[in-house]
Amino acid sequence: MIIVLKPDAPADSAERILARISDAGLQPLHMPGSERVVLGALGDERVLAELALDSDPDVESVKPILAPYKLVSREMHPHDTVVDVGGVQVGGSRFVVVGGPCAVETREQLLASGRAAKDAGATILRAGAYKPRTSPYSFSGHGPSALTLLREVADELQMPFVTEVMDTADLDLVAEHADAVQVGARNMHNFALLRAVGACGKPVVLKRGLSATIEELLLAAEYILGSGNEQVILCERGIRTFETATRNTLDLNAVPYVKRKSHLPVLVDPSHGTGVRELVTPMALAAAACGADGIMVEVHENPPAALSDGAQSLYPDQFAEMVQALRPVAQAVGRSL
Amino acid sequence: MIIVLKPDAPADSAERILARISDAGLQPLHMPGSERVVLGALGDERVLAELALDSDPDVESVKPILAPYKLVSREMHPHDTVVDVGGVQVGGSRFVVVGGPCAVETREQLLASGRAAKDAGATILRAGAYKPRTSPYSFSGHGPSALTLLREVADELQMPFVTEVMDTADLDLVAEHADAVQVGARNMHNFALLRAVGACGKPVVLKRGLSATIEELLLAAEYILGSGNEQVILCERGIRTFETATRNTLDLNAVPYVKRKSHLPVLVDPSHGTGVRELVTPMALAAAACGADGIMVEVHENPPAALSDGAQSLYPDQFAEMVQALRPVAQAVGRSL
Amino acid sequence: MIIVLKPDAPADSAERILARISDAGLQPLHMPGSERVVLGALGDERVLAELALDSDPDVESVKPILAPYKLVSREMHPHDTVVDVGGVQVGGSRFVVVGGPCAVETREQLLASGRAAKDAGATILRAGAYKPRTSPYSFSGHGPSALTLLREVADELQMPFVTEVMDTADLDLVAEHADAVQVGARNMHNFALLRAVGACGKPVVLKRGLSATIEELLLAAEYILGSGNEQVILCERGIRTFETATRNTLDLNAVPYVKRKSHLPVLVDPSHGTGVRELVTPMALAAAACGADGIMVEVHENPPAALSDGAQSLYPDQFAEMVQALRPVAQAVGRSL
Amino acid sequence: MIIVLKPDAPADSAERILARISDAGLQPLHMPGSERVVLGALGDERVLAELALDSDPDVESVKPILAPYKLVSREMHPHDTVVDVGGVQVGGSRFVVVGGPCAVETREQLLASGRAAKDAGATILRAGAYKPRTSPYSFSGHGPSALTLLREVADELQMPFVTEVMDTADLDLVAEHADAVQVGARNMHNFALLRAVGACGKPVVLKRGLSATIEELLLAAEYILGSGNEQVILCERGIRTFETATRNTLDLNAVPYVKRKSHLPVLVDPSHGTGVRELVTPMALAAAACGADGIMVEVHENPPAALSDGAQSLYPDQFAEMVQALRPVAQAVGRSL
Repeated sequence: MIIVLKPDAPADSAERILARISDAGLQPLHMPGSERVVLGALGDERVLAELALDSDPDVESVKPILAPYKLVSREMHPHDTVVDVGGVQVGGSRFVVVGGPCAVETREQLLASGRAAKDAGATILRAGAYKPRTSPYSFSGHGPSALTLLREVADELQMPFVTEVMDTADLDLVAEHADAVQVGARNMHNFALLRAVGACGKPVVLKRGLSATIEELLLAAEYILGSGNEQVILCERGIRTFETATRNTLDLNAVPYVKRKSHLPVLVDPSHGTGVRELVTPMALAAAACGADGIMVEVHENPPAALSDGAQSLYPDQFAEMVQALRPVAQAVGRSL
Repeated sequence: MIIVLKPDAPADSAERILARISDAGLQPLHMPGSERVVLGALGDERVLAELALDSDPDVESVKPILAPYKLVSREMHPHDTVVDVGGVQVGGSRFVVVGGPCAVETREQLLASGRAAKDAGATILRAGAYKPRTSPYSFSGHGPSALTLLREVADELQMPFVTEVMDTADLDLVAEHADAVQVGARNMHNFALLRAVGACGKPVVLKRGLSATIEELLLAAEYILGSGNEQVILCERGIRTFETATRNTLDLNAVPYVKRKSHLPVLVDPSHGTGVRELVTPMALAAAACGADGIMVEVHENPPAALSDGAQSLYPDQFAEMVQALRPVAQAVGRSL
Repeated sequence: MIIVLKPDAPADSAERILARISDAGLQPLHMPGSERVVLGALGDERVLAELALDSDPDVESVKPILAPYKLVSREMHPHDTVVDVGGVQVGGSRFVVVGGPCAVETREQLLASGRAAKDAGATILRAGAYKPRTSPYSFSGHGPSALTLLREVADELQMPFVTEVMDTADLDLVAEHADAVQVGARNMHNFALLRAVGACGKPVVLKRGLSATIEELLLAAEYILGSGNEQVILCERGIRTFETATRNTLDLNAVPYVKRKSHLPVLVDPSHGTGVRELVTPMALAAAACGADGIMVEVHENPPAALSDGAQSLYPDQFAEMVQALRPVAQAVGRSL
Repeated sequence: MIIVLKPDAPADSAERILARISDAGLQPLHMPGSERVVLGALGDERVLAELALDSDPDVESVKPILAPYKLVSREMHPHDTVVDVGGVQVGGSRFVVVGGPCAVETREQLLASGRAAKDAGATILRAGAYKPRTSPYSFSGHGPSALTLLREVADELQMPFVTEVMDTADLDLVAEHADAVQVGARNMHNFALLRAVGACGKPVVLKRGLSATIEELLLAAEYILGSGNEQVILCERGIRTFETATRNTLDLNAVPYVKRKSHLPVLVDPSHGTGVRELVTPMALAAAACGADGIMVEVHENPPAALSDGAQSLYPDQFAEMVQALRPVAQAVGRSL
C-alpha cells in the first residue's frame, strides 16, 4: 500500500503513520520527494484496512497495491474452477446454455418453455419463483408453490434448475428444491444473503449488480467463498449507463477480465444485458467468442403473454436458432456445445 | 399509455391490441399515421402493466403517460407529509440535522460523538449496528449489542435515533430499539425488506440506491406505503457516475425534483454523497439552499481512529462550524434551524 | 409526436397547441383522458422541432414517435451501404481488419508496424498524425509531416490508410493525403467538423463519443450525409461508465442495434474499447461474432517504446495471432477474412 | 510515480525500468515486497509521461502521485484568480449573475431578454450566435450577423457579453466582438480550439464536458493557460449519468472540489445542469451556497417561442425572483450580489 501525504502535512506525521504501519506488522517505507512525502507498507494489505489510513487528516490518498480479494483470485488459485450443477459442469470445455422463462407462471407454461429450451440444446433450466420488480404493482412470482412446480418439471425434463433467492428467510426452502441458487443483480450487495448462500451447500450463480464494478463483483463472491462455499458461478448481465436504447449495457469486457483475475466460471445473460429480443442472439454469440463459459437466456412458449420480461424473451424457434448459431462460434474458440 | 407499432406490423395487429386494451377496461384509441400506427389506452395505466404490451412482436415501443407510482405522488396527496421521529418533525418548517458516527464502536465513542452532534445542534442521532461493507474483510458492525448501546446512549442524550437494517431477519430487533429504521442504498431494491419495513410500525429513512433513478426511488417508497407505512423519509446520498474525484456524485437535482413529484420529506447525506471530509460542509449548505428538509452527516470524536468511513467523518469542531454556517442559509430559504 | 399536458393546464391550452400543430401542416389529435390531456401530431415530426412544444408552460412532456434521423435510417434505405476505402470494401461480405500504430512516430516505426499489420492480414492502415491528448504535456502528433510519411508508407505497403482530423483548418491537407478521414470520439459533437467532412469527398470513419448515445451517433452521421457524403463508416470504441478496470466500456450491444436501425457499416475498436492489451483479442472476436463489419486495432513494432497508447497496443505476433483467431469466428457468422 | 510490476515479471525487469527512470532524470526507488515488486520515481512526474511505463509488458499498473496539471493548480498559485470580463470581476467577493437567451434570434428578442436579465440584476449578457445542436434539423444560430447584433445590444444595455465559439475558423470574428469567449461542453476536448482560445487575448469561459472528469476539465484549462491565457473561468453545467428525470446531472460536488484544487473562478449553469425550468432556481441557490462565483442562466422574453432550449429558459419574472432569492443565500456565505 502506498500512502501519499498532503503537501502541508506536519513534519512528524510521516513518523507517526510509519509507526502505525509497523505496529500492524507490516514493513514501513519512507520516500520523501520534493513535492510530496510518500509512505509505503509492504505485506498483507488487508491487515491495513483496519487502520483506515485514508481518514488521517494528513493523508492525501491511499493507493492499494494488491487486489482486495484473495479466495476468488487466480493468483492464489491458478486453475479454473468447474462447478457442478446437478450433473452439468460449468467452467469446463463445454459451453453451457441455461434457458427457461423469466418466471414460473403455470405448470403448462413452465413445461412447454423448459422443453423448448431442452430440445434446442439447453442443459440447465432457469425460471423465477421470486421475482424482483421495480414496481409494487408488477407480478412478483408465485413463491413456494413455484418452487414445487420447478422441481417437478425439472425432474420430468431431467434438467437441473437454478432459481433466484431474494431474502435470507426464503433460502432454506429455495436451497432444498433447487440445484443452484441465484443471487440477483439487485441483491449483489445484500451481504446477509451472500453470507447465507455461502453456507447453504448448493452452487451459487452470482449476478453482477447494475452499478457494481468488476472488483465489487469479485468481492461479493469473496463473501460466499469466505463463508465456505467454493461453488460459485459469476454472471455478467449488463450494467447501468447513460445509454437508453438498450435496457442495460452488456459489459463483455468483464468476461476476459474476470477470467484473467479469477478462477471462477463466468456466464453471460444477454436477455437482461440488452432487454431487446432481437439483440439476444448476436450478444450470445459475442459472449461465446470472448470466452464466457455459457449463457443464460430467457425463452417463453408465448412471449406476448408472459407476465414479466416478455420483451426480451425469445420465441422457442428463435432460441433454437440461437443455439444453432452458437455451435460454430463455440467451436471457433475451442469449446464444444 | 401510447403504443407505437412497428413499421412492418401486419394490418390486423392494431385491431388485436386494441381489443386487449378494451378487455382490460381501458379506453382504446387508434391513430393511424403515414409512417407509424399509434395506439392509445386511456385510464389507469397500472392495469396495463399486466398486459406487457412491449413484449408483443408487432409493438415497437410503449410510452407511459402517467407516473408509475401513486401513493407517494404529490398529485394524489398535495400536502407535505411530516414524519415524526421520536418527537422530531422531519418535513416541517425546521431544517433537521441528523448526526453521529458511521458505526457504533464503543459506548465511549458513541457517547462522545453523539454529544458532539447534539451540542452542535443535531436533533436526531445516527450510527450503524449493522454495516454494509464491500469487502468481507472490513468491520461490519457489532450487531445486536450495538442496538442496546444505541438505545442507552440515545436515552442519555435525549435524542431519538435512526439506524440501518440490512436483513428481514434483523428487523424486529432493530425496530424494537430504534426510533426510525433506515434502508440503505445497497438495499433500496431489496423488495422483501421494503415490504417488511412497511409493516414494522416505525418511521423509515429510505436511501436512494447507487444506480437508482429518482423514479425507482419513488417506486421503492411506494412499496413501503403500499405495505401500510406512510412514515417515509427519502434520502439523497449520491449516485455512481464516471467521476472518481469524489466517492459518489451527490445529485442535488433530485431534491427539488422529488419535492415537486412527491409529498414525502427529503434528507441529504453529504458524507456519503462526497466521501471527502472537506466537501461535506459546502454540500450541506447546498442541500439546505435547494430545499432539503434536513441533512445526515457523519461525525466522529476521532476520525482517524474510526473503524469505517473515517475519511468522510467530520471532527466535532468541523461539525459545529457546519451547523453554524447552515443557520443563515436555512433562514435565507425560509427555514429555522 | 405525443404531447402530454400538465394536470393543471388551463382548459384552452389544448386548443391553442392543436392550432400550432395544424399551422405547421401536421394532423392534430385530441385525446382527453381522466387524468391527463394527451395531444398528438401526425406527420413529419422533424417539422415540429421548430415548434419546441416542450417549452410551453402547459406541456408536461413530449414523446417523439419517429427516429430523429432519416438519411442514415434503414427504414428509408433498406440495403446495406458498402464504403470503398481505397479499394477495400467495408460493409460487404469480407470482415475488414484495420491495423497500425496509434501515432506516426518515425518512418521506420510506421513501416515496421504497418508491415506487421499487413503481413498478419490487415487491409487498411491506421495511424495518427494529429493526436487528441487529455494532457497538454503529452505527445500530440507530428502533424503535416506525418501525413506525408503516411502516404509514402501506405503506398509502399500498397494499403489505403485512414487518419484522424481534429480541426476544420487541417481538413484539406488530411483529405488530400488520406484514403479515409476519421472523426474521433472527442469530436463526434464538433458540428463544424462534421459538416466539413461531409463536403470533403473522402470516406469518413465516425467514432462514437465517450458519452454519446447510439441515437446521437446516428444523428452525427446524419450531419455528414446531410452535407452530401454518404461514405460513412461508424465505429464503436467504448463509452465512459463507472467501471475503472478497463479504460472504457466497449458497448457491443451497439453493433447489432445500429445494424438494425441503419444501413451504414460498423467497425469496432477493441484497443480503445478496453485499453488493456490482453483484452483486445477476445473483444475483437466478440465484435466479429455479433455482426461488426470489421475492427480497428493498434499494433506497434515495440509497444513499450510507443509515444502514445502503448498499454493497449498489440505486439506484432499478438496481432497475427488475433487475426488467426478471428478467421474461424468470422466464418462461423458467414463472413470471410 | 509508483510502478507496480506483474507478479510474474522477470527478475531483471525492475533493474531495466529503474534505469529508464534514472535516465529520465528522476530519482528511482526499489521496494521489493513479498507479493509484488513496487518501484518509485521521485521528481517531476510529467517528465515520465514520455516514458509511458504502463505499456511495458512487465508492468501491472502505474499510480501517479502528483496532479497532472500545474498552471491551474492552487498548489502552484495559492491566491484566487479574478477574471475581468468587460469590467465585471468574476471570482471576487461579488456573486456574478450571467443571463440572457440561449440563442440570438432577433434584435427585439435579444434586447428584451437582455434587458430583463439586467433589470433583475445580471451583470453579464449571454446568448449564442453559433449553437451546437444534436440534430442537423435544429436551429444552429445566425452566425456572424448575430455577433454584430450582440455587440450592439450589449453596448445599448451597457453589459459585457460572453458567447460560444465552436470552430477555430470562427474564433477571430468571435473574439473581435465578444468580451469573453465560451468553449462549450461538446468542445471541451477540442484541443485545437483550446490552444486557439489560449492565444486569443480574451477571457475564456470553459464548460465541463458531458463526460469529463474534474481532472480532465482542469487539464483542458491547462491547455489554455499553457497557451498564454490566464483569464479562464470554469463552468460546471451538468454531466451525463443514467438519470433521465433531468437533462443532465448537475455535479455541484465539483464546485468546492475545484475551488480547493485550483485558483480559477467557477460558474454554475443550472439551466443546462437540470434542463427543467422549475429546477433552475433551487439549483442556482445551491450553487451559491456551495461556493460558486456566479451562475449562468437562460432567460427568454417568451420561452414557448424560443428557437432553442425553451424548456429550460426562465420567464423574465422567474429570473427576477431567482435573483431576489439568491441575495440572502449569497450573503449567508459571505458574498454580495
